Amino acid sequence: MGLIDDANREAYERLDASNPALTDVVFAKDVLPDIDKYTVSHAGPPITWERMSGPMRSAVMGALVYEGLAETREEAAEVAASGKIKFRPNHDCGCVGPMAGVTTYSMPLCEVTNLTYGNKVYIAFNESDIRALCFGSADPVVIPRLHWFEEVLGPAVKDALAEMGPINLKAIVTKALTQGEELHNRIAAGSVLFFREIAPTLVRTVGDRAQLQEIIDFLAPSDYFFLNLGMAYGKASADAIKNIPYCTVVTAMSRNGTDFGIKVSALGDRWFTSPCPKVKGIYFPGYSEADANPDLGDSAITETVGLGGCSMAANPAMVHLFGAESTDVAQDITREMLEITVGASKDKVIPNMNNQGIPLGIDIRKVVETEICPLINTGIAHKDPSHGQIGAGVSRAPLSCFQQALEAFAESLG
Amino acid sequence: MGLIDDANREAYERLDASNPALTDVVFAKDVLPDIDKYTVSHAGPPITWERMSGPMRSAVMGALVYEGLAETREEAAEVAASGKIKFRPNHDCGCVGPMAGVTTYSMPLCEVTNLTYGNKVYIAFNESDIRALCFGSADPVVIPRLHWFEEVLGPAVKDALAEMGPINLKAIVTKALTQGEELHNRIAAGSVLFFREIAPTLVRTVGDRAQLQEIIDFLAPSDYFFLNLGMAYGKASADAIKNIPYCTVVTAMSRNGTDFGIKVSALGDRWFTSPCPKVKGIYFPGYSEADANPDLGDSAITETVGLGGCSMAANPAMVHLFGAESTDVAQDITREMLEITVGASKDKVIPNMNNQGIPLGIDIRKVVETEICPLINTGIAHKDPSHGQIGAGVSRAPLSCFQQALEAFAESLG
Repeated sequence: MGLIDDANREAYERLDASNPALTDVVFAKDVLPDIDKYTVSHAGPPITWERMSGPMRSAVMGALVYEGLAETREEAAEVAASGKIKFRPNHDCGCVGPMAGVTTYSMPLCEVTNLTYGNKVYIAFNESDIRALCFGSADPVVIPRLHWFEEVLGPAVKDALAEMGPINLKAIVTKALTQGEELHNRIAAGSVLFFREIAPTLVRTVGDRAQLQEIIDFLAPSDYFFLNLGMAYGKASADAIKNIPYCTVVTAMSRNGTDFGIKVSALGDRWFTSPCPKVKGIYFPGYSEADANPDLGDSAITETVGLGGCSMAANPAMVHLFGAESTDVAQDITREMLEITVGASKDKVIPNMNNQGIPLGIDIRKVVETEICPLINTGIAHKDPSHGQIGAGVSRAPLSCFQQALEAFAESLG
Repeated sequence: MGLIDDANREAYERLDASNPALTDVVFAKDVLPDIDKYTVSHAGPPITWERMSGPMRSAVMGALVYEGLAETREEAAEVAASGKIKFRPNHDCGCVGPMAGVTTYSMPLCEVTNLTYGNKVYIAFNESDIRALCFGSADPVVIPRLHWFEEVLGPAVKDALAEMGPINLKAIVTKALTQGEELHNRIAAGSVLFFREIAPTLVRTVGDRAQLQEIIDFLAPSDYFFLNLGMAYGKASADAIKNIPYCTVVTAMSRNGTDFGIKVSALGDRWFTSPCPKVKGIYFPGYSEADANPDLGDSAITETVGLGGCSMAANPAMVHLFGAESTDVAQDITREMLEITVGASKDKVIPNMNNQGIPLGIDIRKVVETEICPLINTGIAHKDPSHGQIGAGVSRAPLSCFQQALEAFAESLG
C-alpha cells in the first residue's frame, strides 16, 4: 500500500500547492479542442440528447439559439435531436460550468492558470441571476446577456487583466473561507473580493463610459459571480493531480442531471457513473421537491478540492437549508469529510473551527471503506425545461461511483 | 428594581431597533455646535493639552496645520499650548472618531441618521492607512489626504448619496457579522460591502474621470474604510438610548489616551473616568509594548452597541492577537459579554456561534456585580508623537468607571 499512500500524498501536496489565477479571457472557439458551431459541451459525464434532463435540454436549446443555429427554442430542440450536434462533457475538453454548464463556440471564457503547475482551464462567466442559461431558464433576459458577455464584459475583463496582470484566485478563496463562505453555496464575499480587485483597473481601461457603467452595475451587486471562478480554481487544482500512477484520489465529481460521474487520478479520463441523487434543500416560493431536477452541474469540482460541502464549517448558516437545528452540524460535516480525505490544507483554513485546514484529496478507498460519501452543496433546477433556479440544498455523491472506481483500480493493478 | 429593569429593557429594544444609515456628507463647520477654526474635538472624555498623550497631541498638531493655523508641527504645538484652542470631546458634540479622533472645522463628515429614531451623528472619513492623522502620524501623506477628502471624496460621496439615497449601515453590519467580522478589529468585509454598494453610483455621478479613478483607487482596496461608518452606526444607536430615566445601560465608552470614560443613560452627559488601561496585542516589526500608548479612541462605541470585543465570536481568528491558543476563546468572550448585557440581538447574529445574537446593552450593575469588564478590540498608537499605527490588540474597560457611575446612579435615586 506504500505506493498508493505515497501517490495520494503527492496528490494532496499538489492540491495544496496549486495556485490558480485568472490570467485571460478567450473565446471557446479559440481554445477548446475540436470545437465548431455544432459542438455543445455540458456538465457531468457523457450523455445523449435523449437521456438529458429537462434543465440541460433547455440550456442546450438556449445555447443553440444564442449560436444562431435556431430561431426559436422549439427549432433548437429539433436541431438538438437531429444528430447534427456533438455533445461532450466539459471535463473532457478542459472546462467546467455550473448546473447545465453548457459551453459553446462563441462564448468568452475565463482562462484560469494553475501558476504552480502551468495547466490551464476555462469557464464561462457566471450569469448572476436565477434566470440563467445554466439553470435552463427561457427568460428573455438570458440570450442578450450572453451576447453582452461576448461583446462587452469579456473584452473588458481581458483588457483589465492585460493591464493589471493575473488575479490570484487562491488568495480570494482563502480569504472567503475566513468570511463565512465555503465557495459553493455561498460565494458572496468571494464575488465582492473579486469585484474590488478588478474594479479600479476597469475604471482605468474601459474607455466607453456607458459600457463601464454596465459592467460595474453587473459586477458590483453580484453575490454569485465568483462561483464560476471558484470552480475554475477547483478544476485547475484537480487537473494538476490527474494521471498519477497508483493514486486513488478523485479528480472530478460532476453531474449532468441524469448521471453522476467521478474520475480518479490513476484511472485517467474514465468516468464512473451512477444515477444522480436527489437534492435535499429549500425552495423558492411556489416550488417544492416535486419540481426539482436531480443533482446537476460541474460545480462539485469545488468539493473535489475541499470547498463546498467539505468546508461546510466555514458557512455554518447553510445547515438550516437542509433542516439542521444547530449550526454545530456544519463542523460535524467537515469532520466527516476529513475521514475520507488524504489530509487537511496547510494554508486554506476555517477560523471558526479553530483554523482547521479544509479537507483535501478525496480517497475512493476511504469512501468505500467508511461508506461516507462526499456531501455536495448545490443549486436546484426545475426538472422541466424553461424554468430557472428554484432552490438550493445538498446531495451526497453516490457510493456506487466510488465502488466501481475502486474495482477498476484493483483490476488496473492486475 | 422593576423601574430599572424596565428602563434597561427599553434601552435594549431601542438599540436593537436602531437603523442607522449614511444619509449625507456635510462639513464640520456647518453641523457641529459652536465650532470655529480654533475648536478641536477629540476622542474620549475631556482633556487639556497638558495631559494629552503623545499620539493625541500629534494629531492635534497635524489638524492645526491642516486648518492653516500653523505652518509647521512645532508651531502647531505652540498654538495648541497657547490657550487659543478650545478642546472638547467628540461625544459631547455629536460625533466620534477613531484613535485620537481629532475633528476640526474644515473636515467633511459622514452624516449618519438613525432612521428609526431620527437622531443624527457625524464622523470623518477613515484614512485607510497606518500613516493616519488619527494615529498621530506626521508622515507627509497625511495632510494632503485630508485636503483630498475635503475637495474630492467628500463632494463625490455627497453627490452619490443624493442620487442613490441613504446607504443602510445596519444591513452592512449585520452581513459583516456573518463574514467573520466583529466590526472593530476586522472591518474588511464591511469595507468592501460598502464599496460595492456605492461604486455603481460613483461611476454614474463623478463626472471627472481622473477623480473617479482616484476615488475608486482609494475605496476599493481599503480593509478599514468601514471602521468609521461602523462607529457612527454605534453612536447613532447609542444616542437613541440617552437620558432614559432609571436606565443603567452604558451609552458611551471612550478613551483619550490618558483617561477612559463612560456615560450612562440615566446620568446624561456626565463622564465617569479612570486612567486608560494598557493594550495587550501584537506589534508591527520594530515595535513592542514599551512603545505603546495606553488605550485610545472613540471606537469603543462599537463595543457599546455589542460589536467589537463583545462579538469576538464573529472574528475568532483575532484571539491569536492576544495569545489565545484556541479560537474557542472567542466564543467564551462573547458568552462573558452576555453576562453583563441586557440581552442578545434578535437580528444581528453570529452564525458560527449557532446564530447567537450579539450582546446588547451593557448594564453597569452587572459589570460591578460580576467584575466582568467589557473587552475592547483596538488599534495601538505609539506613545510618542509623529508615529502611525504600531499594532493591534485588546483592552478591558476599567472597573472603576462603572463603580463610580453606579454610585452616582444610586445618589441620583436619592
